[in-house]
Amino acid sequence: MTYQCEAKRAGEVEFRCYFQLAMMIIGGKWKPKVLFHLAQNGVVRFGALRRGIVGITEKMLIQSLKELGKDGLVNRKVYREVPPKVEYSLTELGQSFIPILNAMFDWGKSYASYLIARQNNQCEYRAGKVYENIDDLVKVDDAEFTVGS
Amino acid sequence: MTYQCEAKRAGEVEFRCYFQLAMMIIGGKWKPKVLFHLAQNGVVRFGALRRGIVGITEKMLIQSLKELGKDGLVNRKVYREVPPKVEYSLTELGQSFIPILNAMFDWGKSYASYLIARQNNQCEYRAGKVYENIDDLVKVDDAEFTVGS
Repeated sequence: MTYQCEAKRAGEVEFRCYFQLAMMIIGGKWKPKVLFHLAQNGVVRFGALRRGIVGITEKMLIQSLKELGKDGLVNRKVYREVPPKVEYSLTELGQSFIPILNAMFDWGKSYASYLIARQNNQCEYRAGKVYENIDDLVKVDDAEFTVGS
Repeated sequence: MTYQCEAKRAGEVEFRCYFQLAMMIIGGKWKPKVLFHLAQNGVVRFGALRRGIVGITEKMLIQSLKELGKDGLVNRKVYREVPPKVEYSLTELGQSFIPILNAMFDWGKSYASYLIARQNNQCEYRAGKVYENIDDLVKVDDAEFTVGS
């Protein structure tokens, strides 16, 4: 992995290293979740995004979509209707981030396997392994607990 | 990409989908940067981490290391010396996240290419492309500007 931490500029954006640039554009608490939801659902209206991303406030969703739009990752299409209809979707650039979102999803699956192995004191668990029946192991029918965002 | 958004539990951790689980464990503003720094540098002392991660406060670094330690991604080794020496490194589980950190670094590189293409109105730029001479294109010798964290 090449690592460079000098001050850099590309276009109008200043950054130190490519990892930090990526974090500026797609990092933080909400932007990855917005991208993941759009990757899952294609073209989505504001209200559906709001309902689909657990815990996000209207303010944070507006700000995330504004930044992702300005940075070229999200399309915003406005239909001149009453009431106005606004749809969001990933641009080609936004779609180029989908493999990383998928890798994070897969990593979450292996992390769930780790949690189950840790609970059961299964010392032979190796990092990165995903139990074949992971969905059965983690599924909760009696969903009485609350899940934080 | 399979998507499940039911309430789930693995070990003592509650979550909705594997992507959200991954975001809980490695998401946010600082944890990816701490993991990236440890991936780059191997075994690192607290002070070196603090200096290496631009913009992080002592409080945020302590909190990030505490969470990453509790969640099994970071080792903390204390040497009984005066003054005490504490070293941090990635566990095997933490190392399983390195491919995603590398993919984010590479994505940042392609994003820098996009920024340069956008500035130059190079309409033929395709998402995901990295200019071969990207380091020359973005390098700034006169590093007088400030770079945000």
